[in-house]
Amino acid sequence: MEAVANGPNKHDYPNAGIIDGPTNPMVTPLLTDLYQFTMAYAYWKAGKHNERAVFDLYFRRNPFGGEYTIFAGLEDCIRFVAHFNFTEEEIAFVRETLPASCEDGFYHYLRGINCSDIEIYSISEGSVVFPKVPLMRVEGPIAVVQLLETPFVNLINYASLVATNAARHRFVAGKSKQLLEFGLRRAQGPDGGISASKYCYMGGFDATSNVAAGRLFGIPLRGTHSHAFVSSFMSPDEILEKSLHSRDGSTVCEDFVSLVQTWLSKLKWSKLLAGIFGETNQSELAAFTSYALAFPHNFLALVDTYDVVRSGIPNFCAVALALNDLGYKAIGIRLDSGDLAYLSCEARMFFCSIEKEFGVPDFGRTSITASNDLNEETLDALNKQGHEVDAFGIGTHLVTCYAQPALGVVFKLVEINNQPRIKLSEDVSKVSIPCKKRCYRLYGKEGYPLVDIMTGENELSPKVGERILCRHPFNESKRAYVVPQKVEELLKCFWSGSSDKGREELPPIKDIRDRCIKQLENMRPDHMRRLNPTPYKVSVSAKLYDFIHFLWLNEAPVGELQ
Amino acid sequence: MEAVANGPNKHDYPNAGIIDGPTNPMVTPLLTDLYQFTMAYAYWKAGKHNERAVFDLYFRRNPFGGEYTIFAGLEDCIRFVAHFNFTEEEIAFVRETLPASCEDGFYHYLRGINCSDIEIYSISEGSVVFPKVPLMRVEGPIAVVQLLETPFVNLINYASLVATNAARHRFVAGKSKQLLEFGLRRAQGPDGGISASKYCYMGGFDATSNVAAGRLFGIPLRGTHSHAFVSSFMSPDEILEKSLHSRDGSTVCEDFVSLVQTWLSKLKWSKLLAGIFGETNQSELAAFTSYALAFPHNFLALVDTYDVVRSGIPNFCAVALALNDLGYKAIGIRLDSGDLAYLSCEARMFFCSIEKEFGVPDFGRTSITASNDLNEETLDALNKQGHEVDAFGIGTHLVTCYAQPALGVVFKLVEINNQPRIKLSEDVSKVSIPCKKRCYRLYGKEGYPLVDIMTGENELSPKVGERILCRHPFNESKRAYVVPQKVEELLKCFWSGSSDKGREELPPIKDIRDRCIKQLENMRPDHMRRLNPTPYKVSVSAKLYDFIHFLWLNEAPVGELQ
Repeated sequence: MEAVANGPNKHDYPNAGIIDGPTNPMVTPLLTDLYQFTMAYAYWKAGKHNERAVFDLYFRRNPFGGEYTIFAGLEDCIRFVAHFNFTEEEIAFVRETLPASCEDGFYHYLRGINCSDIEIYSISEGSVVFPKVPLMRVEGPIAVVQLLETPFVNLINYASLVATNAARHRFVAGKSKQLLEFGLRRAQGPDGGISASKYCYMGGFDATSNVAAGRLFGIPLRGTHSHAFVSSFMSPDEILEKSLHSRDGSTVCEDFVSLVQTWLSKLKWSKLLAGIFGETNQSELAAFTSYALAFPHNFLALVDTYDVVRSGIPNFCAVALALNDLGYKAIGIRLDSGDLAYLSCEARMFFCSIEKEFGVPDFGRTSITASNDLNEETLDALNKQGHEVDAFGIGTHLVTCYAQPALGVVFKLVEINNQPRIKLSEDVSKVSIPCKKRCYRLYGKEGYPLVDIMTGENELSPKVGERILCRHPFNESKRAYVVPQKVEELLKCFWSGSSDKGREELPPIKDIRDRCIKQLENMRPDHMRRLNPTPYKVSVSAKLYDFIHFLWLNEAPVGELQ
Repeated sequence: MEAVANGPNKHDYPNAGIIDGPTNPMVTPLLTDLYQFTMAYAYWKAGKHNERAVFDLYFRRNPFGGEYTIFAGLEDCIRFVAHFNFTEEEIAFVRETLPASCEDGFYHYLRGINCSDIEIYSISEGSVVFPKVPLMRVEGPIAVVQLLETPFVNLINYASLVATNAARHRFVAGKSKQLLEFGLRRAQGPDGGISASKYCYMGGFDATSNVAAGRLFGIPLRGTHSHAFVSSFMSPDEILEKSLHSRDGSTVCEDFVSLVQTWLSKLKWSKLLAGIFGETNQSELAAFTSYALAFPHNFLALVDTYDVVRSGIPNFCAVALALNDLGYKAIGIRLDSGDLAYLSCEARMFFCSIEKEFGVPDFGRTSITASNDLNEETLDALNKQGHEVDAFGIGTHLVTCYAQPALGVVFKLVEINNQPRIKLSEDVSKVSIPCKKRCYRLYGKEGYPLVDIMTGENELSPKVGERILCRHPFNESKRAYVVPQKVEELLKCFWSGSSDKGREELPPIKDIRDRCIKQLENMRPDHMRRLNPTPYKVSVSAKLYDFIHFLWLNEAPVGELQ
């Protein structure tokens, strides 16, 4: 790689198109561990910095006790790479930080670093992926690739984790429910929130409350009002502007407040509802009325500020029925506390009774949104108990991945100067799989993926209809023959630096989301179930198996028993 | 508040000094929940938007099963407020997002919004804080304050959580150990990593590996090399530049590689170490030698790539002894897998044997750093088992707050137009404490904080030496008299908008860290212990107690039994 005096700009790379910078401007080459710089210096000092290295990025275990993971975060890695270079200020800071004994030439070298000599092969973003199989293979001068490690792992760890969490929530909730991500306030920092919104949408959520994420990524936005809005009102007397046009504009109701009061009293003494409630909270009634005057087409009320059954639901219904008189259709209610299954059933009963007694078409189907510390388990429990919720707003547990807040993505050297490398460990699960590899997904007769297989780079690729031996990488007794009906190569080139090799385009988020949903639907159901799912098999070719074990023996020191 | 055509700049606020913008440029007024905008519209439409509201920001339970929390994130909130205004693009996006029926006047209103009419009273950042006591009290026009809710909660939740987690790790590790934050790669997104580094330092860590955080906040940086560095070498033969000057510059060792080999063979056959190891890994030996040639003053080696006892430690010692011959002192080793207690003891034994056998002064005290999925529990277990670790590198569990990845900070309306407001809930712990309040910390004879007390704004403040009745806010039987020896008012003005009231300066991070460490040391030990800590008492004045319960009865709907 030629050192150049100034960093490249995005147009320097053929076939790269115009790639934007990282979503978060704080993602710079300094967003890395100090040891990447100390290593870069040691490589440079040893004259090794341009040795061609191959690193695999992968994880060791599926999160959340499941047997699958959604791969996400690739686009941000490519955006980072496309703009990777050091400013003079950054170099000055590195110089300040490293020992004074470090030679000047190194800073000159840093000045010229870019990613024109890097190649990145990756599984497509939004794919269902499994442990040990490289999500990305990064090749290039070792010092540069090493500098990419921390940002890549950072950008992929949380993205993949939260996308997987979202997919799991979708799986439990079922396809017919609306899933809304409400996590911004509880996320781990500002772009914890922004990434959560992006990757939850990718994993199958329908919308977010996060306005910034809606703007950045085109995710549908949802939201109405909070408890504070309700308690900020004292009584309906404070509503001054009381008139409301009918939906078709043909008439004006001069006193919408009175219309609401009339309905509330009709409900109180109605045949089906008599005795359910007495005096409702007037602050709440004022808030709902006021909100309906502001959003007559989009009336959705949070009904648990004082008492759901005795106040919130009757107040909502009074306002909804008054709107109905003017041709508007209320959207529904949100429950944010208490027994959501019970309260949703009570609400549904209330709505159906009104439809029946007052002949309001479809009122029984008024939408019910539930929120309040929901997670996979509570969704599952609600399903078992029976509920009438149409939409779930999920925050804390979803975005912080409360059940398991970290994914263990790692970045390991597998080859240098065409020499395969292995990293050993006391713990077998931490031994790395050496060699520059190719990875394939083999599909069975029923169309489901059967097994992923890794081979050496120069092995023949598996063929449809041919019998292939798939071996567990570390357990010699685990192996199986597979005759694939379809073979999919998993790693595709997403970055080819300044070479003229082609590269995959970065698809829009909507396409990534579609891929994710489609791939999840195409998994064999026993891999997907929440309780004791069957592990999906990940294997190596017979040839790669033999090589791993040859290298292992070669590198492990032999003890001397005395 | 006068609407102005253009947003303010930081110089518009007297006494504000020059306050930088938020650390993360993605923190803009759009980083909020959509419902803040729908509410703002509804307030505006009802002519309520300028009603003066008071919100309390607080949390309901201490995290990690503990009885204390560190308050962090204030500075970023103030920076956000100091620059709060909408760009035309942002307003255009809000307009696109809200229903088309929303009136134009609202967007004109948004255009003029700033925080010149907001006041923020806050506990000082870095303080030890407790549930229910407001960390911040935010006053101003209701629509504006509401727009601050989500960013404030987002900025404080994680900051306080991770600072508390850091403080807890420090408590278990003890004062004498070095604590290094190594979490960037596993953090929840890029500024999850940056915030983690900042707030872990605030909570008592000594250094971080995160270069960007080091640069932004002046946090000491630490880092050496990874497993990939070790396995990138094949054998010492590939080291071409083998010479090393002695530390004082007086001599040159022309073949440092041979010097290392000589030491390795001396160790192998030494009296005290004979039989412990045979052939060490040559790739590792080459990597250590090379690293020492690059950083002779700062040699620290990761010793577990192949085998700690049979390869890593002997290889390290050979290089360290060769450096010693030239007047350099090696720093030490890092262990990143296996039984850290056992391995650290083995390493110490090895170092001490060398000191003894070869008479190398202080070699027995060579530093041992341990990393690998450490958390509070493993630190505690290591202490119980006995270990020789001098420094801990902690990542995943620390920065993702694995034991509890979210803090439940909330933002509740407590007063509007001088009318106290309450939010009820089926769950008593979720009932808010109404009224604009003052908060005090009362100290006992031994100098420890005894109790926090909240009073109505206009009550007389507690006096030293006077007997004060402190009541549990919701449990009528829990109350106690206290005669404070010191009274500290907790909420201070940190933002006074365009008024000429003074405000507290934002202290540098080092001062915040010192405050935190000092306050933690001043807590009564039984509040701090990990197992069954005593809850610190949080109370209200007798007058406030009576008022809470009056308002509660007033707002709760009365059922009708039939």
